[in-house]
Amino acid sequence: MDVGREQVGETSAAELDVIMARAVAAARVAEGVPAVERRRWLVAAADAIDADAAELVRIAARESHLPEARLTGELARTTAQLRLFDRVLDEGSYLEATIDHPDPSATPPVPDLRRMLVPLGVVAVFSASNFPFAFSVAGGDTASALAAGNAVVVKAHPGHPELSERTARTVTAALAEAGAPDGLFALVSGFDVGPLLVEHPDTAAVGFTGSVPGGRALFDIAARRPSPIPFYGELGSLNPVVVTPDALRQRGTELARGLSESVTLGAGQFCTKPGVVFVPGGERASDAFAAAVAQSLPDTTWTLLTPSIAEGFARRTAEQLAAGAVAVGGSAGASAGSSSAKSGAAEEAIAGSDVGIPGAGADAGASADGQVAPVILSADVSTVLAHADTLLEESFGPSTLLVRYADDDELARALTALDGSLTATIHAEPSEEIGDLVALLRPRAGRILFGGWPTGVAVSWAQHHGGPYPSTTSVHTSVGATAIRRWLRPVTYQTAPEAALPPELREGNPLGIVRRVDGVLGRS
Amino acid sequence: MDVGREQVGETSAAELDVIMARAVAAARVAEGVPAVERRRWLVAAADAIDADAAELVRIAARESHLPEARLTGELARTTAQLRLFDRVLDEGSYLEATIDHPDPSATPPVPDLRRMLVPLGVVAVFSASNFPFAFSVAGGDTASALAAGNAVVVKAHPGHPELSERTARTVTAALAEAGAPDGLFALVSGFDVGPLLVEHPDTAAVGFTGSVPGGRALFDIAARRPSPIPFYGELGSLNPVVVTPDALRQRGTELARGLSESVTLGAGQFCTKPGVVFVPGGERASDAFAAAVAQSLPDTTWTLLTPSIAEGFARRTAEQLAAGAVAVGGSAGASAGSSSAKSGAAEEAIAGSDVGIPGAGADAGASADGQVAPVILSADVSTVLAHADTLLEESFGPSTLLVRYADDDELARALTALDGSLTATIHAEPSEEIGDLVALLRPRAGRILFGGWPTGVAVSWAQHHGGPYPSTTSVHTSVGATAIRRWLRPVTYQTAPEAALPPELREGNPLGIVRRVDGVLGRS
Repeated sequence: MDVGREQVGETSAAELDVIMARAVAAARVAEGVPAVERRRWLVAAADAIDADAAELVRIAARESHLPEARLTGELARTTAQLRLFDRVLDEGSYLEATIDHPDPSATPPVPDLRRMLVPLGVVAVFSASNFPFAFSVAGGDTASALAAGNAVVVKAHPGHPELSERTARTVTAALAEAGAPDGLFALVSGFDVGPLLVEHPDTAAVGFTGSVPGGRALFDIAARRPSPIPFYGELGSLNPVVVTPDALRQRGTELARGLSESVTLGAGQFCTKPGVVFVPGGERASDAFAAAVAQSLPDTTWTLLTPSIAEGFARRTAEQLAAGAVAVGGSAGASAGSSSAKSGAAEEAIAGSDVGIPGAGADAGASADGQVAPVILSADVSTVLAHADTLLEESFGPSTLLVRYADDDELARALTALDGSLTATIHAEPSEEIGDLVALLRPRAGRILFGGWPTGVAVSWAQHHGGPYPSTTSVHTSVGATAIRRWLRPVTYQTAPEAALPPELREGNPLGIVRRVDGVLGRS
Repeated sequence: MDVGREQVGETSAAELDVIMARAVAAARVAEGVPAVERRRWLVAAADAIDADAAELVRIAARESHLPEARLTGELARTTAQLRLFDRVLDEGSYLEATIDHPDPSATPPVPDLRRMLVPLGVVAVFSASNFPFAFSVAGGDTASALAAGNAVVVKAHPGHPELSERTARTVTAALAEAGAPDGLFALVSGFDVGPLLVEHPDTAAVGFTGSVPGGRALFDIAARRPSPIPFYGELGSLNPVVVTPDALRQRGTELARGLSESVTLGAGQFCTKPGVVFVPGGERASDAFAAAVAQSLPDTTWTLLTPSIAEGFARRTAEQLAAGAVAVGGSAGASAGSSSAKSGAAEEAIAGSDVGIPGAGADAGASADGQVAPVILSADVSTVLAHADTLLEESFGPSTLLVRYADDDELARALTALDGSLTATIHAEPSEEIGDLVALLRPRAGRILFGGWPTGVAVSWAQHHGGPYPSTTSVHTSVGATAIRRWLRPVTYQTAPEAALPPELREGNPLGIVRRVDGVLGRS
């Protein structure tokens, strides 16, 4: 094995220019390539990743500290994403092909107009730390951007450099084998190349999954360009959960168990982790629920994805405690093995946190070996509203905040203070009236769950993985079939001769795709 | 008549807060209102504007200096826009309603997912100067945003304050009569309220039509917000036209006449005015074409929309001349009635411009009465490339720049230097191979015309009125059925009880709209 090739270096500005020039040339070829051929490229990439799964998962496990079973599932999901776009391209309605035949009687008169979506050119994709496959080098952004006919330049995440390099080599080889143009897909790495990639005049759009500060910094660069470009960022999400009084009475223990599992899945490093749970009733009922959650916590600790994520988790937990949240279970961000790790008693947990979190410093609470235990915090609505900037903000890692609410009014006040999230979850009984709750949550989330837990995101036609800022920076999704819309723009051909039209817009619908003709959707 | 009410004052920050609070409340009502009811609101607004057409056109003519015939047509187009969205809502596919029934065998498993687009909330619309109806108070942005179920707050353009006020009153009364919630539509005015409206925390998105500097300033404000919002701006467009050698030979005179008409339509104050025309051949052939264009110019002068637009036109013309363009016909931005107004000789025109344009100062060339005559300029490719910042930038008013190109290579070099435009036009003969030309123009424009002229924008399903920056700031259109997509965001319902679902997503498709069910588009 050529070890040298596996060391990912820093891409220089000059190297980036070369990569971008090749990507521009490749994009120019790709936009003219029939969809049926692009479909082969996607499937070839998926097949190659599947074929290399064992080695890819091994590297990913070493670099990310995530368990192999989880990574095996994530890899399968990643190749399923590539194959979803094979079906999306086959059906063809994503092109929004639309034909208006001339209508001189219209106001104003309508000439022959034929509209379809075309690729943007070169798309920059920033990999995420927490999904080394599904939101990384060959993840959903790459899959949808390639499917649309763009070239893709991926910025590797420093948390899994070797995996990024190997995935890129696998994809590059598969694309070449399948006949894709040279330079259609490339990997860059290093801290400095990120801003350069967003600023590059040949970059037509950006896909990003990561933190609010990092994403906002790149968003700002994209917006400040002489020629601004779309920045499709998924930044941070609190994912509120509301438990109604009846649900708590009927299914409190089951809900506690489910919550505990969802909060600790992947060591809480999911963008859909439930970060705040609104629990009804007085202190006694909510304490009992908190105790049940704590008792359900797995007796384990984790190494988080990177040391800086572990440090950030400890710092955020300390900030939440300083803002008046109290630890009611698990370890309040402290190191593993402390006596508080499985404690159900608030007092013990706080005591534990005093040991583990001497202050709010940058490295507070992270033990020497970086192991982290789950954290369950609690607060009432007035505390949360008084410190919304701290308590209603994502904490990335295995923690959640239980918020006691006295009545519907108090709940409504708390929900109104929430920023945008990817998801919002309602646990209610069938007999309860939840219309007002949905009306409160819908403006604040992109996916509303009725029962269940938000972690685990299906890849399908109806999925939406996006939401009001800061959960995303656009009105589009990064998961599911419609993610492709981000990398396309409309072009209308007016009174074009048949020969100048792309086949998608010719009379007789030679490709048999779904089109709108004179206002009517169909296959004509 | 209550004259006091017709004087539009400056909306204060406090007044804006009140207007926005009412708009938020109205938007909350509107998003729950069935589409069939919103359709009645749109039609009521259209009917009311049609009923008041005579008076509206009279005011518009006085304030905009545009001829009544043009304004009557524009008003009809404006109400046609409102009625188009009645049909769009009836068909319903704009909602992108999508249902995935559960599929436990999928990777990862798919629960019951139901996705549709929902309104954003309160949309801010900035009126344009040049279309006092169609891109103003009740124009396309307002129509599409209301159709989507949003509230709309319009910033009046100072060029037509009384018309804005009267249109707003007409629309407000019609909406109230039709049962729309109070505050769903409002007008604000004054220079200072523009930035305040973009910054307002309750503004969910912005629609803008206007200049590059003005639009970019507001775009920057939208991007710098704590919570950035989409800014759908249509800023400026050069609208290149390419004439091939065969077309010039076969139809030179006809093309010259058509160009002259398109350039001077509405005194050149169209965002789709052809601002640069690439003419083949040596100096002799292009001079003959230029002379033919000049001879076709109407023997008239115009008062432009506002004094500052007239000043800007004179300044831009002076800058173009200073950058090496030569005046070959019309008046180089000079005042009306000068001897150069109908001149076909470059020397005379330049002499005329020397009189009318003593320098590049802000008020150069605008005569005391603000009358403006058409301007035809000429340059070769090397001059244009050496001064692209000046010569390949929009000049708003009745002028165009003819660029001589020697061969395909020179043409390609020039086209590659173009920024994004709303349109690009090719005049070629059927026997000519134009594939390379289309490939060069498509990345630089949103609508490609094969013959004809870009002024005049049909309002239909397949229209696209948008293009790469600076022509627009998004990958969406401001004209046509799909303009509605700008004011919507997706929401997915996961395992929702039937009663919690909007009717658009219920089993059995009670509204009979176009939906995608398990991947298949149809009416099931």
